[in-house]
Amino acid sequence: MVSVKSTMPEPRPEQNAAERLAALAYDDMRRVDRLILERLDSHVDLIPELAKYLIEAGGKRVRPMITVAAGNLLGYTDDSVIKLAAAVEFIHTATLLHDDVVDESGMRRGKTAANLIWGNASSVLVGDFLFARSFSLMVEAGSMKALGVLSAAASTIAEGEVRQLSAVKDMSVSVQTYMQIIDAKTAALFAAAAQVSGIVAQRPAEDEAALETYGRELGLAFQLVDDALDYGGKASKLGKSVGDDFREGKVTLPVALCLQAAEGEEKAFWTRVIAESDQREGDFEQALAYMNARGTIDATIDAARQHARNARIALQRFPANVWRTALEDLAEFVVERAH
Amino acid sequence: MVSVKSTMPEPRPEQNAAERLAALAYDDMRRVDRLILERLDSHVDLIPELAKYLIEAGGKRVRPMITVAAGNLLGYTDDSVIKLAAAVEFIHTATLLHDDVVDESGMRRGKTAANLIWGNASSVLVGDFLFARSFSLMVEAGSMKALGVLSAAASTIAEGEVRQLSAVKDMSVSVQTYMQIIDAKTAALFAAAAQVSGIVAQRPAEDEAALETYGRELGLAFQLVDDALDYGGKASKLGKSVGDDFREGKVTLPVALCLQAAEGEEKAFWTRVIAESDQREGDFEQALAYMNARGTIDATIDAARQHARNARIALQRFPANVWRTALEDLAEFVVERAH
Repeated sequence: MVSVKSTMPEPRPEQNAAERLAALAYDDMRRVDRLILERLDSHVDLIPELAKYLIEAGGKRVRPMITVAAGNLLGYTDDSVIKLAAAVEFIHTATLLHDDVVDESGMRRGKTAANLIWGNASSVLVGDFLFARSFSLMVEAGSMKALGVLSAAASTIAEGEVRQLSAVKDMSVSVQTYMQIIDAKTAALFAAAAQVSGIVAQRPAEDEAALETYGRELGLAFQLVDDALDYGGKASKLGKSVGDDFREGKVTLPVALCLQAAEGEEKAFWTRVIAESDQREGDFEQALAYMNARGTIDATIDAARQHARNARIALQRFPANVWRTALEDLAEFVVERAH
Repeated sequence: MVSVKSTMPEPRPEQNAAERLAALAYDDMRRVDRLILERLDSHVDLIPELAKYLIEAGGKRVRPMITVAAGNLLGYTDDSVIKLAAAVEFIHTATLLHDDVVDESGMRRGKTAANLIWGNASSVLVGDFLFARSFSLMVEAGSMKALGVLSAAASTIAEGEVRQLSAVKDMSVSVQTYMQIIDAKTAALFAAAAQVSGIVAQRPAEDEAALETYGRELGLAFQLVDDALDYGGKASKLGKSVGDDFREGKVTLPVALCLQAAEGEEKAFWTRVIAESDQREGDFEQALAYMNARGTIDATIDAARQHARNARIALQRFPANVWRTALEDLAEFVVERAH
């Protein structure tokens, strides 16, 4: 069990925006955590064991925190918000477990990926269990509309992942295709996480749409920065391994922008390392050199910054309060953590 | 697309019970098929391609047929029944796709398993897609209670599969443990498939419970026969490969009954082939010889027959009509197909 702290920590100025939001949402996130641990329970020992490994792996719970913060922004923190927040984290965790099998990545949040410890079969099945439990939580939350939004998000995520799979080693992945992939595989769940609070708070369609936009734009910014960090920056401090996307031949934005422009020797290089998966010593450094020469990593961060700004703008219709500020700051932090 | 036949086939006496039920449910099952094909659709080509391969692979759609037949038994065939039937088939298909990854079995319904053609990653993700879509279908069906029943069944299935995974190569699997595993991994979905029709038809709790029992007992009979068929019988005619469970060291009832009684040389044999996975030429035939000497395959079929009878008894509270007869006959057929 995660230990229960008895007092809520005070927000302090030296904290970053994510830590400040976590302090602000402390009590509600404790409710979410308790619910998560309760619903991980199963008489089949492997399930809580494996799921806790992943859930306690230091994840920042950014998605359920968005649900909780959006609820607070609207002055609505009934149990249904807590249940939906836990459901969102379960969907996310199920996706991570299945991604480990799909990606064959050795690390996840700085720890050994679960499938390397328990095997692919366990990761697939425990993912399924969490996914099913997430729907049970949604049923308890009692909103058919929220259920519709989250089940649609779940199928969109799977579509995005399949599409990403077929985009591996594909030199023709355009900026547009890349944006569609991250919109589906990442931003859809962020969008739904924010939107469902508007739904259970029974706010007008415009508020719901604004929350959906906030989540979507934040999710895009988040993924763009993540993809930039795979080529360095503060990746190691954030517990992320560097170069995974490159090794797998994933065409993320920093690469897609190079592919569009490359000719001659550079084009031959990208063809060899991406399309033909023929990677040699020093290739990662060469790739970085091409990206830096073209400024494609900076362009990726700039794109993230733009989406983070869109996220903040979407909040302008809501009354200025401590929650709105925290959500605005989170959008900024998601980008600035890269530096 | 599956071709649309314009006329409903007449039930004929030489048909088996499953074919007679299929003929009776023809129009409603056409609605289910249309809905399934419609909801398989995705702009990501691989998804309908892979899912259709599996769904058109000659599956008998026994689970959605139970939903449809239970609805007809109650005189209720509104769209919600059709939607739930399609959702049930999607959950089942998602489970099959994930099972292929988990089992590493080469065959499925007499065809090459999808993961061997498209890879494990695609099987995992398309399974997730189908699972998510099944919940979207349930949302459309509009019954929160049915959603609760099916999401609970889905997590029970995953628990059963995980438990089965840890029971592989385990000499201590008892008859009770085996029955708990098949109750979870197979019977739970059959039970839910029947029960949800009672829910949307708004029948009293007793009717709903009787349908749940019918489905559960039928599911147990179905799985017991399936496990017996893995050791021969009419397996090849049914497009099932023989000996998969044996090769994987799965302790199903015909083996569990031997393990309980074996001593000396026989015990050493089972320990070597099951616990130590050390299988040699002629071991499968030796296993069959032990089972036949003890009569454990016949005992498995007899257990199935008993559960099939329980299924028929559960229907006695409903008025005798053509649907009740068809469901009763189906329970009998599930067992007799083994001979």
